[in-house]
Amino acid sequence: MSISIDAAESSKVAKGTAPLVARPAAAGGWKKGLAIIDFVLRLGAIAAALGAAATMGAADQVLPFFTQFFQFEASYDDLPTFQFFLITMAIVGGYLVLSLPFSVVTIIRPHAIGARLFLIILDTVFLSLATAAASAAAAIVYLAHNGNQSSNWLAICNQFTDFCQATSGAVVSSLVAVVILVLLVVMTAVALRKH
Amino acid sequence: MSISIDAAESSKVAKGTAPLVARPAAAGGWKKGLAIIDFVLRLGAIAAALGAAATMGAADQVLPFFTQFFQFEASYDDLPTFQFFLITMAIVGGYLVLSLPFSVVTIIRPHAIGARLFLIILDTVFLSLATAAASAAAAIVYLAHNGNQSSNWLAICNQFTDFCQATSGAVVSSLVAVVILVLLVVMTAVALRKH
Repeated sequence: MSISIDAAESSKVAKGTAPLVARPAAAGGWKKGLAIIDFVLRLGAIAAALGAAATMGAADQVLPFFTQFFQFEASYDDLPTFQFFLITMAIVGGYLVLSLPFSVVTIIRPHAIGARLFLIILDTVFLSLATAAASAAAAIVYLAHNGNQSSNWLAICNQFTDFCQATSGAVVSSLVAVVILVLLVVMTAVALRKH
Repeated sequence: MSISIDAAESSKVAKGTAPLVARPAAAGGWKKGLAIIDFVLRLGAIAAALGAAATMGAADQVLPFFTQFFQFEASYDDLPTFQFFLITMAIVGGYLVLSLPFSVVTIIRPHAIGARLFLIILDTVFLSLATAAASAAAAIVYLAHNGNQSSNWLAICNQFTDFCQATSGAVVSSLVAVVILVLLVVMTAVALRKH
Protein backbone atom coordinates (compact mmCIF):
# COMPACT_ATOMS: atom_id res chain seq x y z
CA MET A 1 0.00 0.00 0.00
CA SER A 2 2.68 2.46 0.99
CA ILE A 3 4.76 1.47 -2.04
CA SER A 4 1.89 2.14 -4.47
CA ILE A 5 1.35 5.53 -2.87
CA ASP A 6 5.02 6.32 -3.22
CA ALA A 7 4.97 5.33 -6.87
CA ALA A 8 1.90 7.44 -7.62
CA GLU A 9 3.48 10.23 -5.65
CA SER A 10 6.78 10.18 -7.47
CA SER A 11 5.04 10.12 -10.83
CA LYS A 12 2.87 13.04 -9.71
CA VAL A 13 5.94 14.94 -8.58
CA ALA A 14 7.65 14.15 -11.87
CA LYS A 15 4.60 15.38 -13.80
CA GLY A 16 4.38 18.46 -11.63
CA THR A 17 8.02 19.52 -11.77
CA ALA A 18 9.02 18.48 -15.26
CA PRO A 19 7.32 21.41 -17.06
CA LEU A 20 8.52 23.82 -14.39
CA VAL A 21 12.12 22.84 -15.11
CA ALA A 22 11.81 22.42 -18.86
CA ARG A 23 9.73 25.48 -19.73
CA PRO A 24 12.21 28.22 -18.77
CA ALA A 25 14.89 26.58 -20.92
CA ALA A 26 12.53 26.24 -23.90
CA ALA A 27 10.96 29.69 -23.55
CA GLY A 28 14.35 31.18 -22.70
CA GLY A 29 15.62 30.12 -26.11
CA TRP A 30 13.52 32.43 -28.26
CA LYS A 31 13.57 35.13 -25.61
CA LYS A 32 17.36 35.11 -25.69
CA GLY A 33 17.22 35.20 -29.49
CA LEU A 34 14.88 38.23 -29.36
CA ALA A 35 17.23 39.91 -26.87
CA ILE A 36 20.22 39.43 -29.19
CA ILE A 37 18.27 40.82 -32.18
CA ASP A 38 17.21 43.70 -29.88
CA PHE A 39 20.88 44.45 -29.15
CA VAL A 40 21.89 44.38 -32.83
CA LEU A 41 18.92 46.55 -33.88
CA ARG A 42 19.83 48.99 -31.11
CA LEU A 43 23.32 49.35 -32.61
CA GLY A 44 21.70 50.09 -35.98
CA ALA A 45 19.41 52.69 -34.41
CA ILE A 46 22.42 54.37 -32.73
CA ALA A 47 24.19 54.62 -36.08
CA ALA A 48 21.06 56.00 -37.78
CA ALA A 49 20.27 58.55 -35.05
CA LEU A 50 23.81 59.85 -34.60
CA GLY A 51 24.35 59.79 -38.37
CA ALA A 52 21.24 61.92 -38.82
CA ALA A 53 22.43 64.38 -36.17
CA ALA A 54 25.93 64.58 -37.68
CA THR A 55 24.65 65.01 -41.23
CA MET A 56 22.32 67.79 -40.13
CA GLY A 57 25.07 69.49 -38.15
CA ALA A 58 27.45 69.36 -41.10
CA ALA A 59 24.84 70.68 -43.57
CA ASP A 60 26.24 74.06 -44.51
CA GLN A 61 26.50 75.77 -47.87
CA VAL A 62 27.87 79.10 -48.97
CA LEU A 63 26.77 80.26 -52.39
CA PRO A 64 29.64 81.24 -54.74
CA PHE A 65 28.25 84.71 -55.43
CA PHE A 66 27.78 87.60 -53.01
CA THR A 67 26.82 91.26 -52.93
CA GLN A 68 28.70 94.06 -51.31
CA PHE A 69 27.00 93.68 -47.95
CA PHE A 70 25.67 90.17 -47.94
CA GLN A 71 26.89 86.64 -48.42
CA PHE A 72 24.38 83.88 -49.08
CA GLU A 73 24.81 81.04 -46.66
CA ALA A 74 22.52 78.27 -45.44
CA SER A 75 23.19 76.22 -42.34
CA TYR A 76 21.05 74.12 -40.02
CA ASP A 77 20.79 76.87 -37.39
CA ASP A 78 18.95 79.16 -39.77
CA LEU A 79 15.82 77.09 -39.20
CA PRO A 80 14.70 76.37 -35.60
CA THR A 81 13.14 73.07 -36.69
CA PHE A 82 16.53 71.79 -37.86
CA GLN A 83 18.08 72.83 -34.54
CA PHE A 84 15.35 70.88 -32.73
CA PHE A 85 16.06 67.95 -35.07
CA LEU A 86 19.80 68.01 -34.34
CA ILE A 87 19.39 68.24 -30.56
CA THR A 88 16.66 65.59 -30.40
CA MET A 89 18.52 63.12 -32.59
CA ALA A 90 21.64 63.54 -30.45
CA ILE A 91 19.57 62.92 -27.30
CA VAL A 92 17.93 59.83 -28.84
CA GLY A 93 21.35 58.51 -29.90
CA GLY A 94 22.70 59.12 -26.40
CA TYR A 95 19.74 57.32 -24.82
CA LEU A 96 20.22 54.35 -27.17
CA VAL A 97 23.90 54.10 -26.17
CA LEU A 98 22.96 54.19 -22.49
CA SER A 99 20.27 51.54 -23.08
CA LEU A 100 22.80 49.00 -24.40
CA PRO A 101 23.70 47.66 -20.90
CA PHE A 102 20.01 46.98 -20.22
CA SER A 103 19.78 45.14 -23.53
CA VAL A 104 22.79 43.04 -22.45
CA VAL A 105 20.98 42.25 -19.19
CA THR A 106 18.02 40.85 -21.17
CA ILE A 107 20.45 38.66 -23.16
CA ILE A 108 22.10 37.25 -20.03
CA ARG A 109 18.81 36.88 -18.13
CA PRO A 110 16.02 36.36 -20.70
CA HIS A 111 13.42 36.26 -17.92
CA ALA A 112 14.37 39.56 -16.29
CA ILE A 113 11.15 41.56 -16.40
CA GLY A 114 12.44 44.78 -14.87
CA ALA A 115 14.98 45.48 -17.59
CA ARG A 116 12.49 44.80 -20.40
CA LEU A 117 9.80 46.94 -18.80
CA PHE A 118 12.32 49.76 -18.31
CA LEU A 119 13.37 49.45 -21.95
CA ILE A 120 9.86 49.37 -23.45
CA ILE A 121 8.70 52.43 -21.47
CA LEU A 122 11.75 54.56 -22.35
CA ASP A 123 11.80 53.24 -25.93
CA THR A 124 8.20 54.41 -26.36
CA VAL A 125 9.01 57.89 -25.05
CA PHE A 126 12.11 58.26 -27.23
CA LEU A 127 10.23 56.83 -30.20
CA SER A 128 7.81 59.73 -29.88
CA LEU A 129 10.69 62.21 -29.60
CA ALA A 130 12.49 60.82 -32.64
CA THR A 131 9.27 60.71 -34.70
CA ALA A 132 8.47 64.31 -33.77
CA ALA A 133 11.92 65.52 -34.82
CA ALA A 134 11.97 63.47 -38.02
CA SER A 135 8.56 64.53 -39.28
CA ALA A 136 8.93 68.19 -38.30
CA ALA A 137 12.21 68.31 -40.25
CA ALA A 138 10.54 66.42 -43.12
CA ALA A 139 7.79 69.07 -43.28
CA ILE A 140 10.41 71.84 -43.55
CA VAL A 141 12.51 69.92 -46.08
CA TYR A 142 9.39 69.42 -48.20
CA LEU A 143 8.73 73.15 -48.02
CA ALA A 144 12.34 73.92 -48.96
CA HIS A 145 12.07 71.63 -51.97
CA ASN A 146 8.64 72.66 -53.24
CA GLY A 147 7.79 75.95 -51.58
CA ASN A 148 4.16 76.94 -51.15
CA GLN A 149 2.21 79.06 -53.58
CA SER A 150 -0.62 80.05 -51.25
CA SER A 151 1.56 81.49 -48.53
CA ASN A 152 4.17 82.82 -50.97
CA TRP A 153 7.01 80.76 -49.55
CA LEU A 154 9.58 80.15 -52.29
CA ALA A 155 11.54 76.93 -52.68
CA ILE A 156 15.08 77.61 -51.47
CA CYS A 157 16.45 74.35 -52.86
CA ASN A 158 16.85 75.95 -56.27
CA GLN A 159 19.81 77.84 -54.84
CA PHE A 160 20.96 75.68 -51.94
CA THR A 161 21.10 72.27 -53.64
CA ASP A 162 23.84 70.74 -51.48
CA PHE A 163 22.25 71.99 -48.27
CA CYS A 164 18.91 70.48 -49.28
CA GLN A 165 20.48 67.14 -50.16
CA ALA A 166 22.25 66.97 -46.79
CA THR A 167 19.12 67.78 -44.81
CA SER A 168 17.04 65.31 -46.83
CA GLY A 169 19.61 62.62 -46.09
CA ALA A 170 19.47 63.43 -42.41
CA VAL A 171 15.67 63.10 -42.42
CA VAL A 172 15.84 59.72 -44.19
CA SER A 173 18.41 58.49 -41.67
CA SER A 174 16.24 59.61 -38.77
CA LEU A 175 13.23 57.80 -40.25
CA VAL A 176 15.34 54.61 -40.28
CA ALA A 177 15.96 55.15 -36.56
CA VAL A 178 12.20 55.60 -36.03
CA VAL A 179 11.36 52.35 -37.82
CA ILE A 180 13.97 50.47 -35.76
CA LEU A 181 12.55 51.94 -32.53
CA VAL A 182 9.05 50.75 -33.50
CA LEU A 183 10.48 47.25 -34.08
CA LEU A 184 12.24 47.38 -30.68
CA VAL A 185 9.00 48.28 -28.86
CA VAL A 186 7.04 45.54 -30.63
CA MET A 187 9.74 42.92 -29.96
CA THR A 188 9.96 43.83 -26.28
CA ALA A 189 6.16 43.63 -26.01
CA VAL A 190 6.23 40.11 -27.51
CA ALA A 191 9.01 39.06 -25.11
CA LEU A 192 7.18 40.56 -22.12
CA ARG A 193 4.06 38.45 -22.51
CA LYS A 194 3.65 35.44 -20.27
CA HIS A 195 5.35 32.34 -21.72
CA MET B 1 4.54 5.59 8.43
CA SER B 2 2.01 5.76 5.67
CA ILE B 3 -0.09 8.23 7.65
CA SER B 4 2.81 10.59 8.12
CA ILE B 5 3.51 10.47 4.38
CA ASP B 6 -0.10 11.31 3.60
CA ALA B 7 -0.06 14.26 5.96
CA ALA B 8 3.15 15.61 4.47
CA GLU B 9 1.69 15.04 1.03
CA SER B 10 -1.57 16.87 1.62
CA SER B 11 0.25 19.82 3.12
CA LYS B 12 2.59 19.85 0.12
CA VAL B 13 -0.38 19.79 -2.24
CA ALA B 14 -2.02 22.58 -0.32
CA LYS B 15 1.16 24.65 -0.53
CA GLY B 16 1.48 23.88 -4.20
CA THR B 17 -2.03 24.71 -5.30
CA ALA B 18 -2.99 27.55 -3.01
CA PRO B 19 -0.96 30.25 -4.83
CA LEU B 20 -2.10 28.91 -8.20
CA VAL B 21 -5.73 29.46 -7.24
CA ALA B 22 -5.28 32.68 -5.29
CA ARG B 23 -2.88 34.58 -7.57
CA PRO B 24 -5.13 35.10 -10.64
CA ALA B 25 -7.81 36.67 -8.47
CA ALA B 26 -5.33 39.00 -6.76
CA ALA B 27 -3.40 39.92 -9.91
CA GLY B 28 -6.63 40.19 -11.88
CA GLY B 29 -7.73 43.05 -9.67
CA TRP B 30 -5.17 45.65 -10.73
CA LYS B 31 -5.08 44.31 -14.29
CA LYS B 32 -8.83 44.87 -14.56
CA GLY B 33 -8.35 48.35 -13.09
CA LEU B 34 -5.68 49.12 -15.70
CA ALA B 35 -7.98 47.82 -18.44
CA ILE B 36 -10.80 50.13 -17.31
CA ILE B 37 -8.43 53.14 -17.21
CA ASP B 38 -7.21 52.04 -20.67
CA PHE B 39 -10.79 52.15 -21.97
CA VAL B 40 -11.49 55.61 -20.50
CA LEU B 41 -8.17 57.03 -21.82
CA ARG B 42 -8.99 55.58 -25.23
CA LEU B 43 -12.27 57.54 -25.25
CA GLY B 44 -10.29 60.69 -24.44
CA ALA B 45 -7.83 59.97 -27.24
CA ILE B 46 -10.71 59.49 -29.71
CA ALA B 47 -12.13 62.88 -28.75
CA ALA B 48 -8.71 64.55 -29.04
CA ALA B 49 -7.82 62.96 -32.40
CA LEU B 50 -11.20 63.52 -34.07
CA GLY B 51 -11.41 66.99 -32.55
CA ALA B 52 -8.02 67.83 -34.04
CA ALA B 53 -9.09 66.54 -37.45
CA ALA B 54 -12.39 68.44 -37.33
CA THR B 55 -10.76 71.69 -36.18
CA MET B 56 -8.19 71.47 -38.96
CA GLY B 57 -10.85 70.66 -41.53
CA ALA B 58 -12.96 73.63 -40.44
CA ALA B 59 -10.00 76.05 -40.43
CA ASP B 60 -10.85 78.39 -43.25
CA GLN B 61 -10.58 82.15 -43.49
CA VAL B 62 -11.42 84.64 -46.21
CA LEU B 63 -9.88 88.07 -45.81
CA PRO B 64 -12.37 90.96 -45.99
CA PHE B 65 -10.48 92.75 -48.78
CA PHE B 66 -9.84 91.59 -52.33
CA THR B 67 -8.42 92.78 -55.63
CA GLN B 68 -10.07 92.62 -59.01
CA PHE B 69 -8.70 89.16 -59.84
CA PHE B 70 -7.85 87.64 -56.52
CA GLN B 71 -9.50 86.89 -53.22
CA PHE B 72 -7.32 86.13 -50.21
CA GLU B 73 -8.32 82.86 -48.64
CA ALA B 74 -6.54 80.39 -46.40
CA SER B 75 -7.74 76.85 -45.81
CA TYR B 76 -6.12 73.64 -44.67
CA ASP B 77 -5.72 72.28 -48.21
CA ASP B 78 -3.38 75.11 -49.17
CA LEU B 79 -0.63 73.36 -47.24
CA PRO B 80 0.07 69.67 -47.93
CA THR B 81 1.27 69.17 -44.36
CA PHE B 82 -2.13 70.18 -43.02
CA GLN B 83 -3.80 67.76 -45.45
CA PHE B 84 -1.54 64.99 -44.13
CA PHE B 85 -2.44 66.07 -40.60
CA LEU B 86 -6.18 65.93 -41.27
CA ILE B 87 -6.06 62.53 -42.96
CA THR B 88 -3.73 60.98 -40.38
CA MET B 89 -5.70 62.26 -37.40
CA ALA B 90 -8.92 60.90 -38.93
CA ILE B 91 -7.22 57.51 -39.43
CA VAL B 92 -5.89 57.49 -35.86
CA GLY B 93 -9.35 58.38 -34.54
CA GLY B 94 -10.89 55.61 -36.61
CA TYR B 95 -8.35 53.08 -35.34
CA LEU B 96 -9.02 54.13 -31.75
CA VAL B 97 -12.77 53.61 -32.24
CA LEU B 98 -12.14 50.16 -33.72
CA SER B 99 -9.78 49.31 -30.83
CA LEU B 100 -12.50 49.85 -28.20
CA PRO B 101 -13.87 46.26 -28.47
CA PHE B 102 -10.37 44.87 -27.80
CA SER B 103 -10.11 47.15 -24.78
CA VAL B 104 -13.43 45.75 -23.56
CA VAL B 105 -12.04 42.21 -24.00
CA THR B 106 -9.13 43.08 -21.67
CA ILE B 107 -11.63 44.38 -19.08
CA ILE B 108 -13.72 41.20 -19.21
CA ARG B 109 -10.69 38.87 -19.33
CA PRO B 110 -7.77 40.65 -17.59
CA HIS B 111 -5.46 37.73 -18.39
CA ALA B 112 -6.11 37.65 -22.13
CA ILE B 113 -2.65 38.12 -23.63
CA GLY B 114 -3.63 38.14 -27.30
CA ALA B 115 -5.83 41.23 -27.06
CA ARG B 116 -3.22 43.20 -25.10
CA LEU B 117 -0.42 42.24 -27.47
CA PHE B 118 -2.57 43.22 -30.44
CA LEU B 119 -3.35 46.56 -28.78
CA ILE B 120 0.24 47.43 -27.81
CA ILE B 121 1.62 46.67 -31.29
CA LEU B 122 -1.04 48.69 -33.14
CA ASP B 123 -0.96 51.45 -30.50
CA THR B 124 2.79 51.84 -31.08
CA VAL B 125 2.33 52.10 -34.84
CA PHE B 126 -0.49 54.64 -34.57
CA LEU B 127 1.43 56.54 -31.90
CA SER B 128 4.19 57.06 -34.48
CA LEU B 129 1.64 58.15 -37.10
CA ALA B 130 -0.05 60.62 -34.75
CA THR B 131 3.29 62.04 -33.56
CA ALA B 132 4.46 62.47 -37.14
CA ALA B 133 1.32 64.37 -38.12
CA ALA B 134 1.28 66.50 -34.97
CA SER B 135 4.90 67.60 -35.14
CA ALA B 136 4.92 68.19 -38.90
CA ALA B 137 1.88 70.43 -38.50
CA ALA B 138 3.52 72.09 -35.49
CA ALA B 139 6.59 72.92 -37.59
CA ILE B 140 4.40 74.57 -40.24
CA VAL B 141 2.30 76.41 -37.65
CA TYR B 142 5.49 77.74 -36.08
CA LEU B 143 6.62 78.95 -39.50
CA ALA B 144 3.24 80.56 -40.14
CA HIS B 145 3.46 82.40 -36.82
CA ASN B 146 7.09 83.50 -36.95
CA GLY B 147 8.22 83.15 -40.53
CA ASN B 148 11.90 82.65 -41.30
CA GLN B 149 14.31 85.45 -42.10
CA SER B 150 17.04 83.35 -43.69
CA SER B 151 14.86 81.71 -46.29
CA ASN B 152 12.67 84.80 -46.74
CA TRP B 153 9.46 83.07 -45.69
CA LEU B 154 7.08 85.66 -44.24
CA ALA B 155 4.75 85.03 -41.32
CA ILE B 156 1.25 84.66 -42.74
CA CYS B 157 -0.43 84.82 -39.33
CA ASN B 158 -0.33 88.62 -39.44
CA GLN B 159 -3.12 88.43 -42.01
CA PHE B 160 -4.77 85.10 -41.30
CA THR B 161 -5.21 85.33 -37.53
CA ASP B 162 -8.30 83.13 -37.22
CA PHE B 163 -6.85 80.49 -39.51
CA CYS B 164 -3.67 80.38 -37.43
CA GLN B 165 -5.60 80.07 -34.17
CA ALA B 166 -7.65 77.20 -35.53
CA THR B 167 -4.62 75.28 -36.79
CA SER B 168 -2.72 75.90 -33.54
CA GLY B 169 -5.67 74.52 -31.60
CA ALA B 170 -5.75 71.45 -33.82
CA VAL B 171 -2.04 70.84 -33.17
CA VAL B 172 -2.50 71.15 -29.41
CA SER B 173 -5.43 68.72 -29.53
CA SER B 174 -3.37 66.22 -31.53
CA LEU B 175 -0.53 66.47 -29.00
CA VAL B 176 -3.02 65.54 -26.28
CA ALA B 177 -3.89 62.43 -28.32
CA VAL B 178 -0.15 61.63 -28.62
CA VAL B 179 0.40 61.88 -24.85
CA ILE B 180 -2.61 59.62 -24.20
CA LEU B 181 -1.30 57.06 -26.72
CA VAL B 182 2.10 57.01 -24.95
CA LEU B 183 0.27 56.37 -21.65
CA LEU B 184 -1.74 53.55 -23.28
CA VAL B 185 1.41 51.82 -24.56
CA VAL B 186 3.15 52.10 -21.18
CA MET B 187 0.09 50.82 -19.29
CA THR B 188 -0.35 47.86 -21.63
CA ALA B 189 3.35 47.02 -21.23
CA VAL B 190 2.97 47.03 -17.43
CA ALA B 191 -0.13 44.81 -17.67
CA LEU B 192 1.62 42.43 -20.11
CA ARG B 193 4.45 41.55 -17.77
CA LYS B 194 4.26 38.26 -15.88
CA HIS B 195 2.31 38.55 -12.61
